[in-house]
Amino acid sequence: MEETYSPLLQRLIKALQCLPGVGQKSAQRMAFHLLQRDRQRALALAQVLADAVESIGNCERCRMLSEESLCRFCTSPRRNDNELCIVEMPADLLAIEQAGVYRGRYFVLMGHLSPIDGVGPAELGLDLLERRFRDEAIGEVVLATSVTVEGDATAHLLAGIAQKHSVRASRIAYGVPVGGELEYIDSGTLSRAFTGRLHLEPTGSGEF
Amino acid sequence: MEETYSPLLQRLIKALQCLPGVGQKSAQRMAFHLLQRDRQRALALAQVLADAVESIGNCERCRMLSEESLCRFCTSPRRNDNELCIVEMPADLLAIEQAGVYRGRYFVLMGHLSPIDGVGPAELGLDLLERRFRDEAIGEVVLATSVTVEGDATAHLLAGIAQKHSVRASRIAYGVPVGGELEYIDSGTLSRAFTGRLHLEPTGSGEF
Repeated sequence: MEETYSPLLQRLIKALQCLPGVGQKSAQRMAFHLLQRDRQRALALAQVLADAVESIGNCERCRMLSEESLCRFCTSPRRNDNELCIVEMPADLLAIEQAGVYRGRYFVLMGHLSPIDGVGPAELGLDLLERRFRDEAIGEVVLATSVTVEGDATAHLLAGIAQKHSVRASRIAYGVPVGGELEYIDSGTLSRAFTGRLHLEPTGSGEF
Repeated sequence: MEETYSPLLQRLIKALQCLPGVGQKSAQRMAFHLLQRDRQRALALAQVLADAVESIGNCERCRMLSEESLCRFCTSPRRNDNELCIVEMPADLLAIEQAGVYRGRYFVLMGHLSPIDGVGPAELGLDLLERRFRDEAIGEVVLATSVTVEGDATAHLLAGIAQKHSVRASRIAYGVPVGGELEYIDSGTLSRAFTGRLHLEPTGSGEF
């Protein structure tokens, strides 16, 4: 049996599989859909994808994905400078925004502590975070890392750093299911988690 | 609440929703995945997508998607010129190829009769098909359109055309579930459908 796909079609189907959750069959379906019905939008997607990879970097202050050197959450004059919420990923920040319960600033770790993957304090931008603790008037830090082993370990480390700079640390709680991914939690649960946050004792026992 | 996405991120998330089965949440997940973990492959995807839209057209002989003027199914010297299988979509052709039961030539309608959507004989390339009936030594045409109302109507029309050119027409059968999409049927079922095809009576009663 000869090759079924033409070389370029084969390359397109393979390239589409870099999308999360897309395998051979879905990629084939996407390729045919784009070529048969949606060439204009396919071309637009190619263009905006190239633009985004080219232009979107990390905010210099909070590490959120942004095409500006400072993101809109850092530059907004309507947010509370006294509070800093630390999340693992950009999607977590957006989930919290959509819940509409928090009006302070953010810091995005872009991951969590994971020594096995070579992710330590440096990869999480903790030097930048410490500089913010030093330079800004932050009264409270809200730790919104995932409720997983790595997320808890990361929160524990962050609580220690906050304590060092005499910043009060709290951890979101109430209703975030253990092992759950923050990105997919409904706004109501997230609101409760913010409202019911537990203040950490400066002794930092590691239990939240 | 201010806009949560930056303008470029918003455009990327919107553009990704041109993919079939991808909504707001999946598009956001894809955008973050590409920007956080897979920039190199995202750029490659943008490039190959633009190339594909630019270069892939329809085969001049069978209308299959192809970056050459004649596709590999039309140019292959190892296929049987005596048989012509007519399918609705490129994905249907590939499903039949993967079943490995058919070694003749193809014709891809790129749709089915659907007057309500303005799809008539001209849109299905039936002038090109008639020219092939006239110019080529086709002994049998295998109608592999979907087992749906539109697919059956299309097969009925095609059987009439074949009859006019004194070409024997058959319709694949046996085990293709009514209302099912050819693209997703397993190879075994497709093999049975090819083996057990029913020859149409030249009276063309419309029942297959």
